[in-house]
Amino acid sequence: QGILERLDAGEIVIGDGGFVFALEKRGYVKAGPWTPEATVEHPEAVRQLHREFLRAGSNVLQTFTFYASEDKLENRGNYVAEKISCQKVNEAACDIAREVANDGDALVAGGVSQTPSYLSCKDKAEVKAVFQKQLDIFMKKNVDFLIAEYFEHVEEAVWAVEVLKESGKPVAATMCIGPEGDMHGVPPGECAVQLVKAGASIVGVNCHFDPDTCLQTVKLMKEGLQAAKLKAHLMSQPLAFHTPDCGKQGFIDLPEFPFGLEPRIVTRWDIQKYARKAYDLGIRYIGGCCGFEPYHVRAIAEELGPERGFLPEASEKHGSWGDSLSMHTKPWVRARARKEYWENLKPASGRPYCPSMSKPDGWGVTKGTRELMQQKEATSEQQLKELFQKQK
Amino acid sequence: QGILERLDAGEIVIGDGGFVFALEKRGYVKAGPWTPEATVEHPEAVRQLHREFLRAGSNVLQTFTFYASEDKLENRGNYVAEKISCQKVNEAACDIAREVANDGDALVAGGVSQTPSYLSCKDKAEVKAVFQKQLDIFMKKNVDFLIAEYFEHVEEAVWAVEVLKESGKPVAATMCIGPEGDMHGVPPGECAVQLVKAGASIVGVNCHFDPDTCLQTVKLMKEGLQAAKLKAHLMSQPLAFHTPDCGKQGFIDLPEFPFGLEPRIVTRWDIQKYARKAYDLGIRYIGGCCGFEPYHVRAIAEELGPERGFLPEASEKHGSWGDSLSMHTKPWVRARARKEYWENLKPASGRPYCPSMSKPDGWGVTKGTRELMQQKEATSEQQLKELFQKQK
Amino acid sequence: QGILERLDAGEIVIGDGGFVFALEKRGYVKAGPWTPEATVEHPEAVRQLHREFLRAGSNVLQTFTFYASEDKLENRGNYVAEKISCQKVNEAACDIAREVANDGDALVAGGVSQTPSYLSCKDKAEVKAVFQKQLDIFMKKNVDFLIAEYFEHVEEAVWAVEVLKESGKPVAATMCIGPEGDMHGVPPGECAVQLVKAGASIVGVNCHFDPDTCLQTVKLMKEGLQAAKLKAHLMSQPLAFHTPDCGKQGFIDLPEFPFGLEPRIVTRWDIQKYARKAYDLGIRYIGGCCGFEPYHVRAIAEELGPERGFLPEASEKHGSWGDSLSMHTKPWVRARARKEYWENLKPASGRPYCPSMSKPDGWGVTKGTRELMQQKEATSEQQLKELFQKQK
Amino acid sequence: QGILERLDAGEIVIGDGGFVFALEKRGYVKAGPWTPEATVEHPEAVRQLHREFLRAGSNVLQTFTFYASEDKLENRGNYVAEKISCQKVNEAACDIAREVANDGDALVAGGVSQTPSYLSCKDKAEVKAVFQKQLDIFMKKNVDFLIAEYFEHVEEAVWAVEVLKESGKPVAATMCIGPEGDMHGVPPGECAVQLVKAGASIVGVNCHFDPDTCLQTVKLMKEGLQAAKLKAHLMSQPLAFHTPDCGKQGFIDLPEFPFGLEPRIVTRWDIQKYARKAYDLGIRYIGGCCGFEPYHVRAIAEELGPERGFLPEASEKHGSWGDSLSMHTKPWVRARARKEYWENLKPASGRPYCPSMSKPDGWGVTKGTRELMQQKEATSEQQLKELFQKQK
Repeated sequence: QGILERLDAGEIVIGDGGFVFALEKRGYVKAGPWTPEATVEHPEAVRQLHREFLRAGSNVLQTFTFYASEDKLENRGNYVAEKISCQKVNEAACDIAREVANDGDALVAGGVSQTPSYLSCKDKAEVKAVFQKQLDIFMKKNVDFLIAEYFEHVEEAVWAVEVLKESGKPVAATMCIGPEGDMHGVPPGECAVQLVKAGASIVGVNCHFDPDTCLQTVKLMKEGLQAAKLKAHLMSQPLAFHTPDCGKQGFIDLPEFPFGLEPRIVTRWDIQKYARKAYDLGIRYIGGCCGFEPYHVRAIAEELGPERGFLPEASEKHGSWGDSLSMHTKPWVRARARKEYWENLKPASGRPYCPSMSKPDGWGVTKGTRELMQQKEATSEQQLKELFQKQK
Repeated sequence: QGILERLDAGEIVIGDGGFVFALEKRGYVKAGPWTPEATVEHPEAVRQLHREFLRAGSNVLQTFTFYASEDKLENRGNYVAEKISCQKVNEAACDIAREVANDGDALVAGGVSQTPSYLSCKDKAEVKAVFQKQLDIFMKKNVDFLIAEYFEHVEEAVWAVEVLKESGKPVAATMCIGPEGDMHGVPPGECAVQLVKAGASIVGVNCHFDPDTCLQTVKLMKEGLQAAKLKAHLMSQPLAFHTPDCGKQGFIDLPEFPFGLEPRIVTRWDIQKYARKAYDLGIRYIGGCCGFEPYHVRAIAEELGPERGFLPEASEKHGSWGDSLSMHTKPWVRARARKEYWENLKPASGRPYCPSMSKPDGWGVTKGTRELMQQKEATSEQQLKELFQKQK
Repeated sequence: QGILERLDAGEIVIGDGGFVFALEKRGYVKAGPWTPEATVEHPEAVRQLHREFLRAGSNVLQTFTFYASEDKLENRGNYVAEKISCQKVNEAACDIAREVANDGDALVAGGVSQTPSYLSCKDKAEVKAVFQKQLDIFMKKNVDFLIAEYFEHVEEAVWAVEVLKESGKPVAATMCIGPEGDMHGVPPGECAVQLVKAGASIVGVNCHFDPDTCLQTVKLMKEGLQAAKLKAHLMSQPLAFHTPDCGKQGFIDLPEFPFGLEPRIVTRWDIQKYARKAYDLGIRYIGGCCGFEPYHVRAIAEELGPERGFLPEASEKHGSWGDSLSMHTKPWVRARARKEYWENLKPASGRPYCPSMSKPDGWGVTKGTRELMQQKEATSEQQLKELFQKQK
Repeated sequence: QGILERLDAGEIVIGDGGFVFALEKRGYVKAGPWTPEATVEHPEAVRQLHREFLRAGSNVLQTFTFYASEDKLENRGNYVAEKISCQKVNEAACDIAREVANDGDALVAGGVSQTPSYLSCKDKAEVKAVFQKQLDIFMKKNVDFLIAEYFEHVEEAVWAVEVLKESGKPVAATMCIGPEGDMHGVPPGECAVQLVKAGASIVGVNCHFDPDTCLQTVKLMKEGLQAAKLKAHLMSQPLAFHTPDCGKQGFIDLPEFPFGLEPRIVTRWDIQKYARKAYDLGIRYIGGCCGFEPYHVRAIAEELGPERGFLPEASEKHGSWGDSLSMHTKPWVRARARKEYWENLKPASGRPYCPSMSKPDGWGVTKGTRELMQQKEATSEQQLKELFQKQK
């Protein structure tokens, strides 16, 4: 059954987690360029992560094609030699996802995301050509559906959806925005409306913000669609990091990004709360993004086990609400084998010299210039430095 | 070259990280019994984790045989069907470790740890028989050396070393104790002396405490050996969790154990500091335990790169001190591509409703009874409940 | 010169601090009823606090008549014997304030605040009669101007202003509301408009929220007045507690209120930032409320010293930005004798087992019921319990 | 009845709180030199604070003669004009304390403290002459007993006790040290022994550390005395700041000293715990030092009310364990009117960008040099700078 048949039938669809952060910690992806050529260089590592998400309950395996558009890969030519072409990276990603998906009840989704071409002000045709190139591969490899994700500008997201839609495959679209809306100030409700009008059957948010913030944003999208009398399925794939202190552009601006985010990692119990809230809000495609490890996906599947009527395979190694502790030799550890305990725990950081919140960077910069910089962000480094200096 | 040749030559030997926590998050191991039968059930998952540690720089791959002694496995018969015998679990562990070790410059170490037999007051011969059974498999599979690890009682650790020593292989021994010493109050220095006298060539600590606390404990061991005019190599394999608030028995008693420890996870920069301090203290076998992921091991290898003259394979996907950010499009993120930034960062938890430290559980219990309970910890649950009730 | 002459001339007018919290800590006022009969029972204690505020730079001494309306005092008859009548309490408050004001350049302001009569749904005439009774005393004692403060409902505040206005004295009006507006949901801008139309020459907020939140609220008031093309002077008298975690009803609902607020007390440096921001926002009547001690008032006067051209008397015992440390014997303490140090200090709490934020109480209660409870808050306890139970 | 009669009879004697911090906040004392000439310049302010402590339950009023030795006052000649001599300052302090003490059941204690003469290596005779000069005034004014307090070096404390002892009045002696002992490394137990041998009838600690740390130190003193078979009464007058993160020299080295300590201020409930622990430890002279306000002293008196059989006057304005909230209009505030609530409250700081602990300054300096600097701390600034530079 396809993605829309499932969602139309009222099924809960569980997404997967974040590849770039997980594979960075495992040693196969480099932070910054988030090197998708891992699909060619270390297919067994990518395959294993897909397997873990499948086992944890994912119904969708996204091809690991983030930042794998041709313009993005060329932009950093020093990382990808000619021998690893955009074509190869994307094909390998499709093959690996399909191989693992065939082991279980999962769909393969081909994914495109925000491009340097757009950010450097290339025209609509040029940007669309970039998406088309990835789409051609996805069609050749016959993925089950398509996702346009991680867009900060609704205009570009709409272009992506328009390209993907022509394939005839179902299209989902998620933006990496918060309640304040996209980088040009288009509010979430309006973003959702534009995406659906462009052809997306599923809309929502991914990345950049923590579960609570993402749900607020999806709620605004839902309200926007209702006001416009449009119908679409809702989707959320947040960070697995607590980020109550983010500014408009999300966790990139937090001083801890990307190498000091550990104290912000959410627990499995946080995810159970997230899954429940998402469900109650009417979201039926529930997954994760950066920071989501297999056990976080399993937590979604376990929380919604009663609704779905089954648990994922990985739950054979996980007791509900800590009940694998019920035979522990210490009575006070056994006392943790219950829902109430973990639901109410306020976990300590063990870091008494650290604060609980950070000021995002770039705050000294005025709003106008930050937006200018954002719009320009793929232009020459020199120009940015000058902008920055002028600002100070 | 064997472990002792390397250490005697003054080489730094990098250990691996923690299997039970990593595989629990990946969905293959159950918290509590920490099910080592994963080696039989999901060999590809165990193999992949070994590969990642090897790639990150580990010079030793420990067989995944923690809690795989026959008495421990039998104790929880419901988990391990007869078809997965102790024999099979340990053999598979050896085979997988060897297969991966052969891909690089790594030694295979067979590991034994604390037994329920000792905790339930079985006699010396019985306890030794448990170790002997695992040792027989290690010898058959021809591991390179042996590790007795995770002992809370020096008496039992000594028995383990005596058994292992008879094999003729080099023996390392680590206890999961803090500066206060073992559960009978034997101080670390005295523990080290007993272990060396029993035949260990390498001594130190593993698990239960954070890097700083473990280094304090190893320092006390070092001083004990010096006072006794004994020679041995030093080793440390701490948690990758900040635990300044632990009591004598370590992180088990923290309210966050084992499902809410996320905010305590150490960063790669914390590990670089740990590796440097360990090195300065004279420790030359430097690894990790629960919580250590491949990127933590890589951080040891990178910090000590200048001393060793080379970096691990995984460093091809990691810039020193964040330099992969030097091409980021946002100037304030580029500004993070330097050592001084990450060295001084005090990362926020994003959890303003949580404290930074916890009171370990079991504090209400008097010291005497806690020790009694500890000694008895594998006896009947009923008896423990009664003890606990009496105490209250 | 009167209050309006000063403000019309562009002068900065510095208010005083909070009497009830300061006198509670000194032992003369009881938390809860906040017993204003201290003016009769311990006039020397009240007088001394006035003196300290005057010395710290206050240009206004408010009569200590908070919760001294007749209906409030009667409500708790067990505290105030017949021998200490409402009349006596208010007269003594006026006499003490005047006596101290005469020692310096300060005005005396008679203050009325929220009444139990309003909260228990007495009619307009009855509520106005309560204010009139206090006003009669203020007129007899010839205070310099009048303040209606600590109102949660703009309707009642308007009635108070109408009564006070008839005296011919200038009237200031402040509400204890945040950016969400009054308890019936009237937004701050609209509250300000109503108060000015009723006759207030000065409007703003006091109590319930920290300096930052109060300034946000006054900003909304300012915008409301501008939109309505009304003119009035602006005033702010916030708490000296950090309360970023407050709900709509302010610090009363924080679990720490009123006996565990110590870790929230703001520093003198926080106050200097507040004074600067208030000034930049166009506020010219700048003071404080609960938690403000004399040194906090001095901090306002010191921050705005350059604009005013003079420092308060108490500054003879205070070096600017810590410069009294410049002769300290320890070099690292001497190093604290500079602005940059104190401006950037992030002071630690010394409480590693405590969080940085709290959930306000009453959150489990739905918004509708909380508002109902609020409106009814002086009705029978039994009724409230039932409401509360029904809610749970 | 004199101090020794009371203590010998098993009575609890409640000390007073800290004058320099309280009067600094009220505007009469300057941080750094902690100007004791307030007794001459603003006697009414000093008198009022004495009154508040008396009303809160203090059985002893200490003359406000801290840092009022002639050498200390001369050292900062710019502050004290010739017209306010050491003589006048000390006499006024005695007169004010006596005047207030006569209003209640309190003794007057004349106090001397650490001198610049000692720190700049003057000889024993010179240092003793400084103490003698203050003692002469105390004798002339006929104080009830004498306190030598705030000594970092036991040698100087012993000299002080020897001088005071000759007067024939009872002598108490407290050092501002922690469990690590005095600045020359003399442990607390040994300090206590030396002080008792020199003639002190009461020994203990004051200032520099929080209640818990002070009690640990007094415990060590008690054990030292027991081991030496000496008898003396025990006394503690800690800070009212949480300082778990202090180094050997106490709160002076914390980055927050002295103008950013607010988040560390202890609550009345913390003090009740302190009073109970102090009592249980056998301490019978229980008071406070810097940060102790009248309500903290009242908390001692209330906690020990059952043992003493009466409450202080100020308790008429304070309900036990928050019971003045029992009539509050909000049910969730009424719910705070009970002991269990306040005992278990973990108060939030409202400062999510601040940590809970600080690194004391001067940590970069090696221990040896810090001790050298400490010993030399009154020598030339130039020399210290050089030492400090050399160290870096």
